[in-house]
Amino acid sequence: MRAAVRGGSGDIQIAQVPDARVIEPTDAVVRIVLAAVCGTDLWAYRGQEEIPPGPRAGHEFLGLVEEVGRDVRALRPGALVLAPFMWADGVCPACRDGLTTSCPDGGMWGGEHDGGQGEAVRVPFADATLVELPPAVDDERLPAVLTLADVMPTGLHAVNGTGAGPDTDVVVVGDGAVGLCAVLAARRAGARQIMLLSRHHARALVGQDFGATEVLTGHGDQTRDRVLELTHGQGAQAVLECVGTQDSIDTALGLVRDGGAIALVGAPHGALPGPEQIFMRNLTFTGGLTPARALIPDLLDEVVSGRLDPAPVFDLAVDLDGVPAAYEAMAGRSAIKALVRI
Amino acid sequence: MRAAVRGGSGDIQIAQVPDARVIEPTDAVVRIVLAAVCGTDLWAYRGQEEIPPGPRAGHEFLGLVEEVGRDVRALRPGALVLAPFMWADGVCPACRDGLTTSCPDGGMWGGEHDGGQGEAVRVPFADATLVELPPAVDDERLPAVLTLADVMPTGLHAVNGTGAGPDTDVVVVGDGAVGLCAVLAARRAGARQIMLLSRHHARALVGQDFGATEVLTGHGDQTRDRVLELTHGQGAQAVLECVGTQDSIDTALGLVRDGGAIALVGAPHGALPGPEQIFMRNLTFTGGLTPARALIPDLLDEVVSGRLDPAPVFDLAVDLDGVPAAYEAMAGRSAIKALVRI
Repeated sequence: MRAAVRGGSGDIQIAQVPDARVIEPTDAVVRIVLAAVCGTDLWAYRGQEEIPPGPRAGHEFLGLVEEVGRDVRALRPGALVLAPFMWADGVCPACRDGLTTSCPDGGMWGGEHDGGQGEAVRVPFADATLVELPPAVDDERLPAVLTLADVMPTGLHAVNGTGAGPDTDVVVVGDGAVGLCAVLAARRAGARQIMLLSRHHARALVGQDFGATEVLTGHGDQTRDRVLELTHGQGAQAVLECVGTQDSIDTALGLVRDGGAIALVGAPHGALPGPEQIFMRNLTFTGGLTPARALIPDLLDEVVSGRLDPAPVFDLAVDLDGVPAAYEAMAGRSAIKALVRI
Repeated sequence: MRAAVRGGSGDIQIAQVPDARVIEPTDAVVRIVLAAVCGTDLWAYRGQEEIPPGPRAGHEFLGLVEEVGRDVRALRPGALVLAPFMWADGVCPACRDGLTTSCPDGGMWGGEHDGGQGEAVRVPFADATLVELPPAVDDERLPAVLTLADVMPTGLHAVNGTGAGPDTDVVVVGDGAVGLCAVLAARRAGARQIMLLSRHHARALVGQDFGATEVLTGHGDQTRDRVLELTHGQGAQAVLECVGTQDSIDTALGLVRDGGAIALVGAPHGALPGPEQIFMRNLTFTGGLTPARALIPDLLDEVVSGRLDPAPVFDLAVDLDGVPAAYEAMAGRSAIKALVRI
């Protein structure tokens, strides 16, 4: 089969790789229909993370079950399924608590395993990992459904971590797909104000469609002054940090009010402040790697019915051969997020 | 008047100082009846914090209003009042939100200001800062009431920060007065298990009286193994870190389960882990300087009625001249917390 394979920094190629196949009796093989490129994929691509060349790429996909192992009970070939960005066994204490990302048997697509940007994937613990889509789902809704693999639950996880609700002023740091989904999740939670930091016109427009009540286009002090102005001098109770760089963590610290919460859902590449600042200001740091599998069921109905529509985060569609160009477009910020039709 | 004054490390003395007096029209002067020595007082005493010699000590007291400024409305001379460990103006946005510790006009007793270990204190923003006690309060309940100045609300703040409730397994790191009050607060919240780390017999007994379901007396790995055994291999959802050293922060990290919360209510003198660990494990860091003033009203009724009794944290009583001996006893861990009858 063919799949995206990472070379060094700036290098991603479509190559022939061994076919995905059932190895364990709890495995399924999924023939991929739709995949996506994630901001996280870009860390290694940009050389901000060291990886040895060779591994597979992509961790967001939906597709058709092609084959199941003998212990798979809930799924049959032909089922249309969505995969969260990590597999999990579904039976360990962490999984039972809904924290599928801490499953000791869990793992993430790509690397040494089949990746989501390819023709097919071996799915461990298929019954627990995959979510079968309702038969009535409209093909046009599938890109929106695909956001449930990662970016939409990640935005929701940020909101949930801070406890943001109707009395909350929210700042979203990051105008990538996760940041935009965080805006949508904050609107879904009924947040009073949703302030999105963005100096990118197209992204800001999506953010406004998603519910941003204010787009902050300024730099450092201007942004801070405006947030203070909009929050009676206090700053935001909830800051959703959807990037993960030192700069974005520092920005979040400057915009959160004392007693507020910062949710870190961008894979962190910076350092937290010393505990004295957290202590004296009564700040809460929360967030983390999103247990997408546990959040999908609640969101799926809303997305299938069209009440929740994160699909506008996709502003580029490619086929498998277009994946390298999609990485280039996203790294250059000319695309928010690429959909891959396989 | 006479008051405790700090020398260098290991030196605290009772000295003659200028009388407390009304300066601002919103001030009151309180003649102290009961005061206490706090674990926080010991940081400088032990030389773990640098301070210039000379400043006053103590930040926990209750007493009788002796004089009020012309703008004080709610209090009259003769009123019996409790002070939280910081004053606050009561009208700023932070105070209105209940985060009195972030009041820009706020401050802490001691240092350049009158301290709580002395005959009297000038109290800024007296109407907002002081809590008048109900006329029917029994003298025997006053030591318990005094814990509401700091240690009991601090224990409660730790519990509140983690959201611990009936389904929560709680670990308390620290067997000082704050740790013991955290045990009491966890029991008040209905926590399922309360595991207290203590290798000090007398403190462990108080902890058990306060509701600890298990006292963990072992070192490092033994403690971790026992917490895992008691929590089905998962660790605790809530760890109340009531010390503030690097060792205690690291201990908390080893005992919290993925997806759990660590409340930092010991004045932090250590570093947090990198954000990767927080991110990958979905940990929450919360806590901070306790807004005691906002928490006192809820607790006061329970304490006055005897339903909540933190008084056993006091295992030593001295008069003002006994304050230096009380510091020595607490620094040597032969006393948990000293009550000062003035």
